[in-house]
Amino acid sequence: MNRQQLLELLQSIKDGELTPAEGVRRLEHFPFQDLGFARVDHHRTLRQGFPEVVFGQGKKPEHVAAIVESLLRQKSNILVTRCSREVYRRLRKVTAKASYHESARAASILQDPKIYGVGIVHVVCAGTSDIPVAEEAALTARLMGNEVRTTFDVGVAGIHRLLSVRGDLAKARVIVAVAGMEGALPSVVGGLVRVPVIAVPTSIGYGGSFGGLTALLAMLNSCASNVAVVNIDNGFGAGYVASLINRLTNDD
Amino acid sequence: MNRQQLLELLQSIKDGELTPAEGVRRLEHFPFQDLGFARVDHHRTLRQGFPEVVFGQGKKPEHVAAIVESLLRQKSNILVTRCSREVYRRLRKVTAKASYHESARAASILQDPKIYGVGIVHVVCAGTSDIPVAEEAALTARLMGNEVRTTFDVGVAGIHRLLSVRGDLAKARVIVAVAGMEGALPSVVGGLVRVPVIAVPTSIGYGGSFGGLTALLAMLNSCASNVAVVNIDNGFGAGYVASLINRLTNDD
Amino acid sequence: MNRQQLLELLQSIKDGELTPAEGVRRLEHFPFQDLGFARVDHHRTLRQGFPEVVFGQGKKPEHVAAIVESLLRQKSNILVTRCSREVYRRLRKVTAKASYHESARAASILQDPKIYGVGIVHVVCAGTSDIPVAEEAALTARLMGNEVRTTFDVGVAGIHRLLSVRGDLAKARVIVAVAGMEGALPSVVGGLVRVPVIAVPTSIGYGGSFGGLTALLAMLNSCASNVAVVNIDNGFGAGYVASLINRLTNDD
Amino acid sequence: MNRQQLLELLQSIKDGELTPAEGVRRLEHFPFQDLGFARVDHHRTLRQGFPEVVFGQGKKPEHVAAIVESLLRQKSNILVTRCSREVYRRLRKVTAKASYHESARAASILQDPKIYGVGIVHVVCAGTSDIPVAEEAALTARLMGNEVRTTFDVGVAGIHRLLSVRGDLAKARVIVAVAGMEGALPSVVGGLVRVPVIAVPTSIGYGGSFGGLTALLAMLNSCASNVAVVNIDNGFGAGYVASLINRLTNDD
Amino acid sequence: MNRQQLLELLQSIKDGELTPAEGVRRLEHFPFQDLGFARVDHHRTLRQGFPEVVFGQGKKPEHVAAIVESLLRQKSNILVTRCSREVYRRLRKVTAKASYHESARAASILQDPKIYGVGIVHVVCAGTSDIPVAEEAALTARLMGNEVRTTFDVGVAGIHRLLSVRGDLAKARVIVAVAGMEGALPSVVGGLVRVPVIAVPTSIGYGGSFGGLTALLAMLNSCASNVAVVNIDNGFGAGYVASLINRLTNDD
Amino acid sequence: MNRQQLLELLQSIKDGELTPAEGVRRLEHFPFQDLGFARVDHHRTLRQGFPEVVFGQGKKPEHVAAIVESLLRQKSNILVTRCSREVYRRLRKVTAKASYHESARAASILQDPKIYGVGIVHVVCAGTSDIPVAEEAALTARLMGNEVRTTFDVGVAGIHRLLSVRGDLAKARVIVAVAGMEGALPSVVGGLVRVPVIAVPTSIGYGGSFGGLTALLAMLNSCASNVAVVNIDNGFGAGYVASLINRLTNDD
Amino acid sequence: MNRQQLLELLQSIKDGELTPAEGVRRLEHFPFQDLGFARVDHHRTLRQGFPEVVFGQGKKPEHVAAIVESLLRQKSNILVTRCSREVYRRLRKVTAKASYHESARAASILQDPKIYGVGIVHVVCAGTSDIPVAEEAALTARLMGNEVRTTFDVGVAGIHRLLSVRGDLAKARVIVAVAGMEGALPSVVGGLVRVPVIAVPTSIGYGGSFGGLTALLAMLNSCASNVAVVNIDNGFGAGYVASLINRLTNDD
Amino acid sequence: MNRQQLLELLQSIKDGELTPAEGVRRLEHFPFQDLGFARVDHHRTLRQGFPEVVFGQGKKPEHVAAIVESLLRQKSNILVTRCSREVYRRLRKVTAKASYHESARAASILQDPKIYGVGIVHVVCAGTSDIPVAEEAALTARLMGNEVRTTFDVGVAGIHRLLSVRGDLAKARVIVAVAGMEGALPSVVGGLVRVPVIAVPTSIGYGGSFGGLTALLAMLNSCASNVAVVNIDNGFGAGYVASLINRLTNDD
Repeated sequence: MNRQQLLELLQSIKDGELTPAEGVRRLEHFPFQDLGFARVDHHRTLRQGFPEVVFGQGKKPEHVAAIVESLLRQKSNILVTRCSREVYRRLRKVTAKASYHESARAASILQDPKIYGVGIVHVVCAGTSDIPVAEEAALTARLMGNEVRTTFDVGVAGIHRLLSVRGDLAKARVIVAVAGMEGALPSVVGGLVRVPVIAVPTSIGYGGSFGGLTALLAMLNSCASNVAVVNIDNGFGAGYVASLINRLTNDD
Repeated sequence: MNRQQLLELLQSIKDGELTPAEGVRRLEHFPFQDLGFARVDHHRTLRQGFPEVVFGQGKKPEHVAAIVESLLRQKSNILVTRCSREVYRRLRKVTAKASYHESARAASILQDPKIYGVGIVHVVCAGTSDIPVAEEAALTARLMGNEVRTTFDVGVAGIHRLLSVRGDLAKARVIVAVAGMEGALPSVVGGLVRVPVIAVPTSIGYGGSFGGLTALLAMLNSCASNVAVVNIDNGFGAGYVASLINRLTNDD
Repeated sequence: MNRQQLLELLQSIKDGELTPAEGVRRLEHFPFQDLGFARVDHHRTLRQGFPEVVFGQGKKPEHVAAIVESLLRQKSNILVTRCSREVYRRLRKVTAKASYHESARAASILQDPKIYGVGIVHVVCAGTSDIPVAEEAALTARLMGNEVRTTFDVGVAGIHRLLSVRGDLAKARVIVAVAGMEGALPSVVGGLVRVPVIAVPTSIGYGGSFGGLTALLAMLNSCASNVAVVNIDNGFGAGYVASLINRLTNDD
Repeated sequence: MNRQQLLELLQSIKDGELTPAEGVRRLEHFPFQDLGFARVDHHRTLRQGFPEVVFGQGKKPEHVAAIVESLLRQKSNILVTRCSREVYRRLRKVTAKASYHESARAASILQDPKIYGVGIVHVVCAGTSDIPVAEEAALTARLMGNEVRTTFDVGVAGIHRLLSVRGDLAKARVIVAVAGMEGALPSVVGGLVRVPVIAVPTSIGYGGSFGGLTALLAMLNSCASNVAVVNIDNGFGAGYVASLINRLTNDD
Repeated sequence: MNRQQLLELLQSIKDGELTPAEGVRRLEHFPFQDLGFARVDHHRTLRQGFPEVVFGQGKKPEHVAAIVESLLRQKSNILVTRCSREVYRRLRKVTAKASYHESARAASILQDPKIYGVGIVHVVCAGTSDIPVAEEAALTARLMGNEVRTTFDVGVAGIHRLLSVRGDLAKARVIVAVAGMEGALPSVVGGLVRVPVIAVPTSIGYGGSFGGLTALLAMLNSCASNVAVVNIDNGFGAGYVASLINRLTNDD
Repeated sequence: MNRQQLLELLQSIKDGELTPAEGVRRLEHFPFQDLGFARVDHHRTLRQGFPEVVFGQGKKPEHVAAIVESLLRQKSNILVTRCSREVYRRLRKVTAKASYHESARAASILQDPKIYGVGIVHVVCAGTSDIPVAEEAALTARLMGNEVRTTFDVGVAGIHRLLSVRGDLAKARVIVAVAGMEGALPSVVGGLVRVPVIAVPTSIGYGGSFGGLTALLAMLNSCASNVAVVNIDNGFGAGYVASLINRLTNDD
Repeated sequence: MNRQQLLELLQSIKDGELTPAEGVRRLEHFPFQDLGFARVDHHRTLRQGFPEVVFGQGKKPEHVAAIVESLLRQKSNILVTRCSREVYRRLRKVTAKASYHESARAASILQDPKIYGVGIVHVVCAGTSDIPVAEEAALTARLMGNEVRTTFDVGVAGIHRLLSVRGDLAKARVIVAVAGMEGALPSVVGGLVRVPVIAVPTSIGYGGSFGGLTALLAMLNSCASNVAVVNIDNGFGAGYVASLINRLTNDD
Repeated sequence: MNRQQLLELLQSIKDGELTPAEGVRRLEHFPFQDLGFARVDHHRTLRQGFPEVVFGQGKKPEHVAAIVESLLRQKSNILVTRCSREVYRRLRKVTAKASYHESARAASILQDPKIYGVGIVHVVCAGTSDIPVAEEAALTARLMGNEVRTTFDVGVAGIHRLLSVRGDLAKARVIVAVAGMEGALPSVVGGLVRVPVIAVPTSIGYGGSFGGLTALLAMLNSCASNVAVVNIDNGFGAGYVASLINRLTNDD
C-alpha cells in the first residue's frame, strides 16, 4: 500500500463508502514500511548520491548484469563489489559507462559525479598486500560523492613513512586505516589525528594471523580512542561508514 | 496510538473534521506496534497460561519484589529465575504463595494451576551435577501448564540406566535432555524416541569442557535428526520451547 | 531374532523342548533391538510419512542409486541431501519419479503425497545466499507431509520486509529461521510469534563470520525465549525437527 | 627541544656562533614531536571542549585525586571512568563540582557546559543489563559537549519497542547502539536510519555469550552497512567516536 | 526384572500358565540391563579390586559421608577425589580407616590391599606444580591394586633429570606422564620406552597456557606413537586407564 | 659407537694402549644412544613384530619406494600410511608382497604373520564416513601381530546397533572407538566394557564439527573412566597404542 | 656417576680388576648427564653471574625462605618472582640483603654486583598498567649483571612519546618491549632500531583483549623482522633472553 | 630532505638569505626520517651485510624481477622468500648469480660473501617435514653473513638423536629450533645450552595441530627460560633475529 492507496482509503472513509471501523480493520495489518512514504524516503536517499550496491561474490555474470540493468534507471552511481573481469565484460554489454577496478575487484558505473562530502576521506593502508581492500574503500567513498585521498604502504615498522604524510592526514575529515598482520596502523594513525578513524583488518598475513583475526582483535583493542572497526576485508563497509560521516553537514 | 484512538481519527475524517491528506500525514509515523491490538494480543498470551518471567540474576531483592508485586494482578503464574533464597524471603513479604526451588535456584508463584499442555514434557539429565539446570527446565514447563516427568542421572556411560526408562520416554510428547561433559545424552535419547528433543548443554565438567562449550558443540553435531539445542545452562529456555511444543493442539 | 523367532522360542519352552533355564540363557544376550517388534515399530514410523533420508555428500552416484533402489519398496518419500545433478541423472535411471532441487542441492522421490502435519511450517531466511539452506529445510518438511510456506530475503537490516509478512508468520504452527552473517533473524522472528522457532545458522558471510560460528553463537544467545538451534547449514535437521513438531496432534 | 629552543639554535647559526655543519649534527637526533608546536596543537584540542579522561580501573583513590587535581587547571571537563563511589568521595575533597554516575560507574567534573556538537547523539541499548555501558557512552558524549538522547531496553525480540522510537532515532546525527547476548540491535537500528551507528557489544549474557565475544562478532558481521564497532563494554570509546562525528562541521 | 523373575516367567510358559504370545508381549519392553546378570557382572567387577569412586567436588561433607558409609559394605577400596580436609574429618567419624592425601586432594579407605596388577605403574611429572595431579593418578592406581612408582620434577628443559631415571622407566608396564606448560614430557618419555604412556595435561602455567589447553593439544600431537591422552588435570582418569592396562593378564 | 667399538676401547685401556684419563675424554661426549646395545634393543623391538612405519603423506612415490626397499631386509611387517594407489603401484615394483588398502589409504607388506597379541583388538566406529580411520587402526593392529575384529556403523543415535554387538565387545582385550560429529561412541562403549578404550575423533561432520575438534573435546570429557584419546583422524596411533596394550603379557 | 667415578672405573679396567666386558655392562645404563662434568658445567654457569630463580607463585613463605637459605651459599644473585610482601618479610629473617620490588612483585638478593653484559638492555612499555611486567624484566636483567634502562608509558597512540626516546633506544644492545591491548609497540620499536627486540604481551586490556591473547598474536605477526616473542606477562623470560643476548661477547 | 639539503638550509640562514624564524617554519614539518642521515644510516646498514629481502608470496615473476634488478646496484645480498622455481627462472634473466633453494622455496643472489657474525648460528629441526622452514632460516642467516650449521630430524621422541649432537649445539652462539606437531624441541634444546634459542613453530601436523597453533602455544609456554618465539613457519624471521644476535660484537 503506497501513499496514493492510503489517500484513497481515507477518501473512501470521508465519502462514507467505508466505515471508520472497517478502516481500522484494513489498517491493522498493513505493513508499515510498505507505505508509499517509506519508498519516497528511500528514493530521496538515492537522489542524494548513495550508490546502488550489488554484492558480486557468488553471483553469475548474467544475474549481475540483469540487476544492474534495472538499476540504471535510477540516476545514482552503481557499485558491484567482489566481481571478476568476466562480470565486467558482461556489464559492458549493458552500458558503456561501466569501469573495472582491477585492484579493488569491483566494477562501477558513474552516473552522478556530484560531490556530496564536506571534506576529504583519506584511506591509508599498511602493506602492499592490503591495497585491494583499501582500493575497495576508496572506490566506495568516491561513488558516494566524496573527495578521496589514498596513501598506501605506510606500515608502522617503518614509522617514518607514516610520519611523512602526517600533514596530509591532518587535512582529512575522516580516515580509513587498513592493515593486516598485527593491525597496528589504526592505533598510530588515531594518535596522529583528531578525526574518526574507521579501521579495517585484512586477512593478509602468515601463520598466526588466522585470516585477519589477529588484526581484528588488535584494532578493537586500540589504545587510541577515536577508532571504530568493521569486519575483516570489509573495505566497502569502511568506505560506506566514512562516507556517511563525511557527508554530515551543519544541517544534519 | 491504540485501536480507540485510531477509530477516533478515522471518525474525524468521516465527520470531515480532518482531511484525508492530513490523515495520511498523521498515520505516516505512528508506531505500528503501539496500536491497541498488539497489546490485546499480548494480553491474550498471558491469559493462556504463559508465566511472567523475571530474570533474577544480578537484580536486588527489593527490585525483584517490586516487579513481582506489579505482576501479581495478572492472574498468570510468575517465575523468578536464578535467584537466591534471600530474594525468596523478600518475595514472601509480598505474597504467601511464593515458593522456592533450591535446586533450580528459582522462585515461583502459582496462580493458574490449569494444564494447557497436550501431553507430557519429560526432562532427563546425565549426571547429578546437571540437576539444577534440569530442575529449572522442569519448573518452567510446570508453570507453563504442562504435565512434567523427570529422570535424572542417566548418563550414557551406564547406558542401561537410560534404557530402563525407555518406556517412560516413549510416552513423552517432547523431551528436554540436559548434559554436561561430553554432552552425548541427547544423541542417544534422540535415537530412542520419535518426538522433538530439546538439548541443554551444562557448564558442568573439568578441564577441557570449557564451561559447557564441549557439550554445546557435541549437541549441535548430534547424529540424531530430532535434536535442537539451546544455550549453555539455559534450562529456562529449554523448558519454554518444550512447553510451546507441548501446548500445540490440532487447532493451532 | 524377530518376533516370529521369539514366539518359536517361547513355544519350544511351552512344548517342553527347551527348559526355562535354557531359555534364560538364550535370552540373556539377544540384542534387544533386534527383536521383530523394534523393526515393526520402525516400519510403522515409515508408513506414517517419514521419508527415507540418504546423505548424499561424498557418496558415489552408483552407491546412492543402489540405496535408493532398495528403498523404493517402502512406499514412503525419499530424500537425497547434498547431491549433485550428476547423482540425480543416475537416479532417473532407477525411477522416473525422481526430482532435482537445484537450490537445495537435493533429489527427492515423492511416493506419499499425504499431509500429516497439523498446521503450516513457515521457512524464512535473511539473505539470498541463505536460500539453499532454507530450501533444504522446506523440501525436508514437504517430504515429511507438511504444508510449507517460504519467505526469503527478509534480513533484519531492512526490518520492514520482515514486518510486511508478519501476518503470514502468525499463521504458522512452527517456524524455521535461516540466517548467516550476524544471525539476528530468529531473535526478531521469535519476538513476533508465539510458536517454536527452529534457528539455522548458515556459513554465509565474510571475514569474521568464521564459517557460520558467529551466526550460531548469536542464535544460541537469542533474547527470544522460543528459539532452539540446529547445526550450521543444517537445513535438513531444522526441517526435520519442525516437521516433528508440526505433526504433533492432540492424540500424541 | 621546543620552538623557542629551535629558534635560538637557528639564531646562533645566523650569528655565526654555530657553524651550519654543527647545526646539522645537533638537529640530527632531536625528537620531532618534542617541538613546541606539537604541544600547542594538543592544547588547542583541549580548549575545544575535549574532556580529560582518567581510566579509573585499578587506580587508587588518592592517585586519581592527584591526577584530577592537576587537571583542574585546564578548564575542560574531566571524566573518570570505571571508578567506585569511594573514588568519588575522595574526589569531592578536591572539588565540590565532582558528580558520581552510579550506573555508568564514572565520576565527572563539568567545567565547560558549552555545546560543541552539531546534532544529537542518540544512545540506545537492548536490555536493562546493558544500561551501565550505555550510560558510560552517554556521559562521555555529554562531557564532550553533545546533546544526548537515550533509549534503553529496546531489544530486538520485542521489535515494536524499537519501532516506537523510530521517529526519535531519525533525528539523531549519530547513534550508539549497545547490546549483549546476540548483539542484533545495531543491525536493526542500522537499517532504520541513514546515519553512522557505533556498535558496542557488552559482556552481558549467559553460557555461550563468552563474555561478549558473541555480540562482538555479530556486530562485526552486521548486514547493515552503516555500522562500525568498538571493543566489548567500551562505552567510553563509542561515546568518544560518536562525539567526534557529531562535532564535525562544514568547516572541518 | 532379574534372572529369578525371568526364570519364573519362562516357567509359567512351560507350565502353560502363560501363552507364548503373552510371553512375547511381556518381554518386549523389559529393560535389558535391569536383568539380574547385569548386576552380577557389576558385583564381580567390584570383587576384583575396583575401587568405588566418589567425585567429591561440589559435594557437601555430610553427603560424601553418607555415600561412603553405604559403600563400606562392599569390601572394595574407596576413593573420594577432589575433597577437602574438612570432608576427610567428616569421613573419619564414619570409619577410622580413612586417610587423607593432602597433595592429591583426595581421601581413601583401604579395605582390599591385594595386588591385582601384573607389573609396575610408573607416574612421572614435569614440574613440582604438577605433583597434585600426579599424586591423584598414583593414588588411584594404588587403590586399584597396582604397584606404583613415582618420579616427580623431571621436566624436559633439564633432560638429564629424566634420563637419569631411564632405567626405572624401562621397568614399568605402563606409564602415566603428567605435565603442564608446553606438555612435552609424554613425547620424550614415549620415545624412551616401549609401553603405553597415558598423558595428563595440567592446568599449570602462565599466560598462554590457557588453563591446560596448550599442554593438552601438545600431547595429542605427540610425535611418539605410544601416547594416549586424558582430560586436563584428570589424574584419576589416567590412573584408572593405566590400572586397567596393568591388570590385563594372559587370561584376559 | 656400538657395543663392539666400546669393547675395543675398554680393551685398549686394559692393554695399556689407552690411559684411563684418555678413555674418560673419549667417553665424555659419545652419544649414549649410539651405543651398540641401543641399536640391539631397537633390533629386538623389530624382531618382536613391530612394523616399520612410513608416513606417506606428502612423500613422493619414488622416495617411499626407496625407503621401503631399504626396510625389506628387516623381516618385520611394513606399513605405509596415507598413501595413494599411485604410491602402491610404485611399491609393487619393489616387492610383489605389497598390498593396498583402499579404505585405509595405506599400503602394507606382510613379512611376519605371527600373532603377538594376547587377546582381541576390537575396532568400532560410529558412521560409515569414519570407516577409513577405523580401517587404518585395524590395519595397524593387524601388522603389529594382533587378532582384530571390526564393527562399523554403530552410532549412538541407534543404540540398538551397538547393543547388538555387546557380546563381541565383551570379548575384546582392548577397544578402539572411532567417531566424528558429536563423538559420543567411546563414552557408551566405555560404559559397556571393563577394558581400556582408545578413542579416535574423526574430522567427519558438518558446520560446527570444526574438523573434528568437537568430537575430540567430547571424547576427552567422556564420563566413562576407561577412555583415553589420540589425535583427530589418528587411526594409526590408536591402533599402535591398542596393540601395545594387547601385547602386554604376564611377563612384561 | 661423576668424572672421578668414571676415572676409577676405567682405572679398574686398566688394573685388571674389571674386565672390559664388565665395564661395558656398567656403562650401559649410567645416566649420561649424571657425569661430573655436567655438574661442573652447571657450576660454571652460576659463577658467571646467572641468578638463582625461585618462582614464587603458589609457594608458601616458609618454603621460599628455605629454598633461598640453601641458595645463599652460592655467591650468585637470587631472584624470587611473583611473590608478595609477606614472602619478602619472611626472607628478611634469612638475610638482611633481601630487597622487595613492589611493582615487579619480586624479591631479590644481590650478592654479585658485577656487570657481565656488554651493552645496555633497554626495557620499554606501552602503558602504565604494563609497568609491573616491565619492571620484572628490568629486575631480571639487572640481577643477571646487565646495565638496564627503562622507558615507560610510550604507547603508539601517542607516537611522539616514543620518538622522543629514539636516541636512547638507538644506544641499546637489545630491547625488551612490553605492551598489552593491541600490542603494537614492538612493531614500531622494531622499525626504529637494528638490534633484537624481545616482545612481551601483557594481560592488560578490556573486553576483546582476552587476557593478553590479542597482544600476543599481534606481536607474533609483527611486520618488523627483528622481533621475537615470549609468553603473556612473562617479564622474567624476556629479561632472561635479553640478558643472554647482551652477555654475548666476541669470545662466545 | 637529505643531509646536503639541510646543510644548504642552515647555510642560507648563516648567509642571511633566510631568517631563523623562516627556518623554524621550514623545519617544523619536515619528515624526520627523510633527512639524509637517516638514509645514510640505512645505507650503512646495507653495507654491513644486511640482505635486501623480497617477500615473494603472491608477487608475479616479472614484478619480483623488476624489484631485484633495482636492488642489484646495492652490493648487498638479495633474498627472495617463498617464491617458485618459475620466479627463479625469471630472475636468471636479470642476473646469472641467482640461485634457487628448492627446499627453502627461496631464491638468493650472493654479492657480499663476507662473514659478519661472531660465532655459529645452529639451526635444528624436529622432523623431515620441518626442513623447508629450517632451510629458510639457515639461508637467511647465511645471506646475513653468518656461519651456519644445520641438524635436521632430531625430534624429541627419539631423544638420543638430539643428545648425539649435543656437543655441536654447545658450540653455537645462537640456536634456531624448528618444530611442528607438539613443538617440544625448543624446550629440550633450551635446557641443553646456555645461549638464546629462537623457536619457530611449523604448520606441520595432523588433526589437532591446527595449522601450527599447537606448536606455537607449546613454544611460548616452554619451561626453558632462554627461548623466544617467532610466528608459525616464519623461518625467515628466526634466521633474521638469530643473525642480529650473532652479529653483536663487543663494540655494539
